[in-house]
Amino acid sequence: MRSTTMSDLHVYDTTLRDGAQQEGLNLSVGDKLAIARHLDELGVGFIEGGWPGANPKDTEFFARARDELDLQNATLAAFGATRRAGSRAEADPLVRALVDSGASVVTLVAKSHVRHVQEALRTTLEENLEMIRDTVSYLRGEGRRVFLDAEHFFDGYAVDRSYALAAVRVAAEAGAEVVALCDTNGGMLPDQVETVVADVLATGGGLTRIGIHCHNDTGCAVANSMAAVSAGATHVQGTVNGYGERTGNADLLTVVSNLQLKSGLRLLPDERLRDAMRVAHAISEVTNVPPYSRQPYVGSSAFAHKAGLHASALKVDPGLYQHTDPAAVGNSMRTLVSDMAGRASIELKARELGIDLSNRPELVASVLADVKARELVGYTYDAADASFELLLRNAVSGTTLSYFDVESWRVITDQRGEVGATSEATVKLVADRRRFVATGEGNGPVNALDHALRQAMVQVYPEIDKLELIDFRVRILDAAHGTDAVTRVLIETSDGETSWETVGVAANIVEASWQALVDGITFGLLRHQVPVR
Amino acid sequence: MRSTTMSDLHVYDTTLRDGAQQEGLNLSVGDKLAIARHLDELGVGFIEGGWPGANPKDTEFFARARDELDLQNATLAAFGATRRAGSRAEADPLVRALVDSGASVVTLVAKSHVRHVQEALRTTLEENLEMIRDTVSYLRGEGRRVFLDAEHFFDGYAVDRSYALAAVRVAAEAGAEVVALCDTNGGMLPDQVETVVADVLATGGGLTRIGIHCHNDTGCAVANSMAAVSAGATHVQGTVNGYGERTGNADLLTVVSNLQLKSGLRLLPDERLRDAMRVAHAISEVTNVPPYSRQPYVGSSAFAHKAGLHASALKVDPGLYQHTDPAAVGNSMRTLVSDMAGRASIELKARELGIDLSNRPELVASVLADVKARELVGYTYDAADASFELLLRNAVSGTTLSYFDVESWRVITDQRGEVGATSEATVKLVADRRRFVATGEGNGPVNALDHALRQAMVQVYPEIDKLELIDFRVRILDAAHGTDAVTRVLIETSDGETSWETVGVAANIVEASWQALVDGITFGLLRHQVPVR
Repeated sequence: MRSTTMSDLHVYDTTLRDGAQQEGLNLSVGDKLAIARHLDELGVGFIEGGWPGANPKDTEFFARARDELDLQNATLAAFGATRRAGSRAEADPLVRALVDSGASVVTLVAKSHVRHVQEALRTTLEENLEMIRDTVSYLRGEGRRVFLDAEHFFDGYAVDRSYALAAVRVAAEAGAEVVALCDTNGGMLPDQVETVVADVLATGGGLTRIGIHCHNDTGCAVANSMAAVSAGATHVQGTVNGYGERTGNADLLTVVSNLQLKSGLRLLPDERLRDAMRVAHAISEVTNVPPYSRQPYVGSSAFAHKAGLHASALKVDPGLYQHTDPAAVGNSMRTLVSDMAGRASIELKARELGIDLSNRPELVASVLADVKARELVGYTYDAADASFELLLRNAVSGTTLSYFDVESWRVITDQRGEVGATSEATVKLVADRRRFVATGEGNGPVNALDHALRQAMVQVYPEIDKLELIDFRVRILDAAHGTDAVTRVLIETSDGETSWETVGVAANIVEASWQALVDGITFGLLRHQVPVR
Repeated sequence: MRSTTMSDLHVYDTTLRDGAQQEGLNLSVGDKLAIARHLDELGVGFIEGGWPGANPKDTEFFARARDELDLQNATLAAFGATRRAGSRAEADPLVRALVDSGASVVTLVAKSHVRHVQEALRTTLEENLEMIRDTVSYLRGEGRRVFLDAEHFFDGYAVDRSYALAAVRVAAEAGAEVVALCDTNGGMLPDQVETVVADVLATGGGLTRIGIHCHNDTGCAVANSMAAVSAGATHVQGTVNGYGERTGNADLLTVVSNLQLKSGLRLLPDERLRDAMRVAHAISEVTNVPPYSRQPYVGSSAFAHKAGLHASALKVDPGLYQHTDPAAVGNSMRTLVSDMAGRASIELKARELGIDLSNRPELVASVLADVKARELVGYTYDAADASFELLLRNAVSGTTLSYFDVESWRVITDQRGEVGATSEATVKLVADRRRFVATGEGNGPVNALDHALRQAMVQVYPEIDKLELIDFRVRILDAAHGTDAVTRVLIETSDGETSWETVGVAANIVEASWQALVDGITFGLLRHQVPVR
């Protein structure tokens, strides 16, 4: 394998474009911006944002990205196709939209497979090459860096090698900086990929860089990507969590972890790989696709050991039973999580909150036990810092912080005929030694409860007026039993300046929401140092 | 790659032993017998049943297998360890238990890594080799075929190549028919596996067969298995659905599909590969681990196409967009309808449902416009096939299929004190010219509505009893406004044989759930050709 330094190898993420092709995955512009921020934090080199012009949502993404994203590591790439047959690049509105997106990198998808040119594109082989040349040249003239995705390249190479190579050559001559060879149908095996990439590099006509884009239809997307790098490719495309159409794209974090930890290449800025697990899970919260516990490196089971026979050897030398140090990707060995690793992270989080627990090992142990017991039934504190802070502060103070006592609550949701359903909630609360009964309406049960709660408590805590519920997410856990499953609700509450996340878990979705709602209000009042009345 | 005929290559399944190490997977003896029957039907060569003697459940499995299993293709293998240090094979009760199991094949796990011998086994390097020699010889003397699993082989080879090779040689000399090289920690990459297997074969001292046993910690278990075969291994171990500890074992059906469909080897009896999808899903019913939709070859998304771009060409030649014929593994192509869809994908989807729209361009255009309008407000049809089918059938027939009219519904959820919340729903429905008022309770609003709906409608449609809500997912769209946002609910309904997804969208989460619930029931009744009463 070639020796490669960090700047030599492109890590190119296409979660927002090709990943979004996954069945059931549907990203709003806000989701895309949130994912882009996570990817930038992780330190990927390029983020393919979507297809401006072809898709109004993607046009909006690039517009908002210019204003709202302040990327530190990554460069945004706009994806689009070569110009239409029989036209000119500057006259093609879709090509113009790529320029208008403002992205400094444009990734053009182009055909390199003779039958796809003839049967899907329905043009001549010559015209297709001209479309590549013309579009790349035009975009170069507009000052853009141009990457070319050679669609169906490997299948095309098998049918007509010289035409496939001609497409690469034409792109290179016209100024494309990268030609990414795509296994669009995902049917390749590693030895095939390695042979083809080596051949393209040997015959590539002055091309700077060969890239690789794999799908997992043979279960070999990761291995195929690595085979390409081994043959000299220096631009790797993939998606977080392997999202993508059919069986998905190459899982970018697995490829990067392998290349960095096994092959000794450096792809991400220092220490950033340690965020891999956190970023993979944070993105799965955005996509609402449940994390896959058996995912390499970042899955929750990836370093889980059944204690069994070799427990003592495991303790002496975990290296005997682990292929890599889980901390390298921010994961941890599950059998040991109950002692040092877990305690250390509780202490660390407490310190972040200004609470020194270094001399209180028993308290740390009891918080850890509590967290573990609650995570077992479905709570998650990674995504609900505010709930964790409340839990920790309650443990430290030895009492449960409560701004009001809940006597009962009730929500009625009904619908008659064609009119939309309405919800009405009644809460009975006690605070400041008074009893409050209040009713609120809303367009859903949680909205109604939120209104009723505020209406009652604003009389005692006027500060509550500043707080607003701004996000609400629901995840059904253990879904094998449908609505009998446990529901986890995450609520984000804002005071106009900052926001915080709280969590509730219950069989009943409304009860889980109520828990998270009460935590969100409690945390907001605490943050503003409102005394309990 | 060597040319290999069917009888040359062992397909060795270890679902019942190594697969059962998966977190949360717990198989009864009955489960194991059921899985063994499925595997035999598929035509695998060997089924590793468990560790008799070490595990009472496994002892019972072998006893019952003798009486109850009538295997047509597969041979049962009993798994166990080499004898204890400082003893003799015939005096070791665990080795005796292997003989007593009655299995004609015994697979012995043995150490080949110097540090594992010294630190985990805590014996000398010489004694470990003697344990291998003695145990293999003894079992051969008892008339058993002996396979040897060389645990941690690849890591051991890296630390002390000559010792690792010595372990293989000793086993071969003592009469082992196969030595399977195990990447126990799963950290290998394909080029490493290929190099080591080739070296072992070149120096293997008269060994008949080298086998391969991979784990998926680098996401390369399938590629590693194939690399080993490419280097000359002729015995492949794996598990169905890639079950196993941590990230799982090599997915046996992916490996077999690749070798058979891509590399032209013949591993299963004629036509049996066409059962792959059915068997994978049947086994996941037994294990109660939900099938993974993105699984290569057999996943429900493995041949699902979303992009509208492809759909027009897909119609002309599916081979241009599929790496293999899905029928080869018992799967089928599915077209997903989404906001990227065009007319062609609507037509294609209709054709899948047996509706020819090729001469009805206006109808196609109107369905497409409807889909796009509904997707704009939050519906998603790529994840809700059944709702799309209802929409399409309604458009074709010009009327809205409705098994009952909804006069009104209402759900009350309340909580008092520390008791968990309860939900109670009342529905008022009209069907068969009668009015039904029914009340149902549940642990959440949707569960309560589901119960009330069934209780009312089972009186008119007894078929409804077969239908069960099995999954429920919630997504909040456009979350910037918190609970004012639109909610999308996806519901999966089953009739015990198959299942389908429906979608509901509304500002009110309960209303969205109700829509999806009604669609799910309607589709189920339609599917069973129940007439509207």
